[in-house]
Amino acid sequence: MTGRLIGIDWGTSSFRAWLMGPGGTVLDEIGTARGILSVPQGGFDVVMEQALAPWPKRLAVIASGMVTSRNGWVETPYLPLPLDAAALAGALVPHRAASGRAVHFVTGALGNAGGLPDVMRGEETEIIGHMAAGGGDGLFVLPGTHSKWARAEAGRLTSFRTCMTGEGFALLRHQSILGRLAEPGPFDPAAFARGLAAGRAAGPLLVRAFSVRALALTGQLAPAQIADYLSGLLIGDEVAGMVPTGPVTLIGRGDLTARYRIALEAAGTEARIAAPGMARLGLWDIATRAGITG
Amino acid sequence: MTGRLIGIDWGTSSFRAWLMGPGGTVLDEIGTARGILSVPQGGFDVVMEQALAPWPKRLAVIASGMVTSRNGWVETPYLPLPLDAAALAGALVPHRAASGRAVHFVTGALGNAGGLPDVMRGEETEIIGHMAAGGGDGLFVLPGTHSKWARAEAGRLTSFRTCMTGEGFALLRHQSILGRLAEPGPFDPAAFARGLAAGRAAGPLLVRAFSVRALALTGQLAPAQIADYLSGLLIGDEVAGMVPTGPVTLIGRGDLTARYRIALEAAGTEARIAAPGMARLGLWDIATRAGITG
Repeated sequence: MTGRLIGIDWGTSSFRAWLMGPGGTVLDEIGTARGILSVPQGGFDVVMEQALAPWPKRLAVIASGMVTSRNGWVETPYLPLPLDAAALAGALVPHRAASGRAVHFVTGALGNAGGLPDVMRGEETEIIGHMAAGGGDGLFVLPGTHSKWARAEAGRLTSFRTCMTGEGFALLRHQSILGRLAEPGPFDPAAFARGLAAGRAAGPLLVRAFSVRALALTGQLAPAQIADYLSGLLIGDEVAGMVPTGPVTLIGRGDLTARYRIALEAAGTEARIAAPGMARLGLWDIATRAGITG
Repeated sequence: MTGRLIGIDWGTSSFRAWLMGPGGTVLDEIGTARGILSVPQGGFDVVMEQALAPWPKRLAVIASGMVTSRNGWVETPYLPLPLDAAALAGALVPHRAASGRAVHFVTGALGNAGGLPDVMRGEETEIIGHMAAGGGDGLFVLPGTHSKWARAEAGRLTSFRTCMTGEGFALLRHQSILGRLAEPGPFDPAAFARGLAAGRAAGPLLVRAFSVRALALTGQLAPAQIADYLSGLLIGDEVAGMVPTGPVTLIGRGDLTARYRIALEAAGTEARIAAPGMARLGLWDIATRAGITG
């Protein structure tokens, strides 16, 4: 089958690329840990070319994710909400790579909620992909380092908020006093559920977080339970504070979406996990609208 | 004047000691950065003796703070609430130092709020000192790495909660994406006040914290304002979530208590800053009741 497009989802900590045929079908794919934080200044051309070397140079490349951020390859402006696939297609930022490949960057989205701005780069493409695949709109949660809670209506992304849950967990687990007594272990559903309950409780998050330490010191939380209790506490706080109304579609890594489904269902919210591949489908949809597929 | 007692407030990041005369008056004092985290395993005897060398060996030493924690010199049990100076005096843990000095450790306090345990080591002594000096009881806030909100009634410490505000600030400022665009600068009251408003707003803390990044990226927050905005956001969240009723007495470092006074007053709560020296006065009161002063 003939290649039509190369799509790249280039995030903070990972690089994924697909060689797509007619209709966005997958002819070949690559996944590496060369996220933008691992790429030295000026090194994006080399990293991309190494990854894409086996694929035809005549194909257009479309790329989304943190690769267009201030710490990425080419910083692009944010597109204000509401936006849809056509708007993203119209706002593609073209760039000629050193290898001669034509790269088209999907730009990020700028939201505003409660008088405060908010930004995303990459998740807009996954939500577009979900809608393009006939998955419908509604409320989306994309868990991760910076979780996104996004609403889409009539095919348009209309609002979103970012919650630093993944980064907060990593800091508290590995850099704070809370992780001192922790030991690794398999996923402990009871510890996670106990954390969810503390996450839903009243009071400042940083007060409830200290219960990790106090419970561990008083022997009420085993060392291997600490990480899952803390994870439940942060996700429980996020879910309770976002007050989801109606069913939620989860897009993302399997281990994370499973945790969020437990948390959402514990809060009485229906949660569905989207099939993998939403970034690729979004890239195909945007590229098709922009007329850059071969 | 004759020395009667040596008091030590030995915390996570600092060591303070006083040679006290009759009535707890200060004859001499020492302050160093030899907090317990800087002391190697088995090194507490040497560090203490180096600091106290000029002072008479015959005097009893009384010590409070994180020096009695799991990462300290001698781990002591927690005393459950409610407690008063007499209870702390009765629970002193004696220890003979390698130098022959008699050291008496003030043990920590164990609280329970909302079904979750909480712990403190050192702050109980400062609150006892405030009451011993005639400062009265009521609601106390002791800002720091782990802020304590404590209530004392009729001379007894009856409840408290810990908020990891200081540690959370340090992590977000220096280890997270929020600090990436920050530059140092003098205290900026307007940025701090703007952070306080975001701290009082609804929604998960880790959602509102991301506004630091979004405001900075969109040019609405200058690099030198980031740290004070973040500080205001975390302290504002803490104050709003603790819902203080009635006036608050602040005990602690001048720069921190000044920030908390601004935050409390912005929330409509009267705040008074206690005079320095509360730890020393608490140590003297407890030692006197235990009959260990020379």
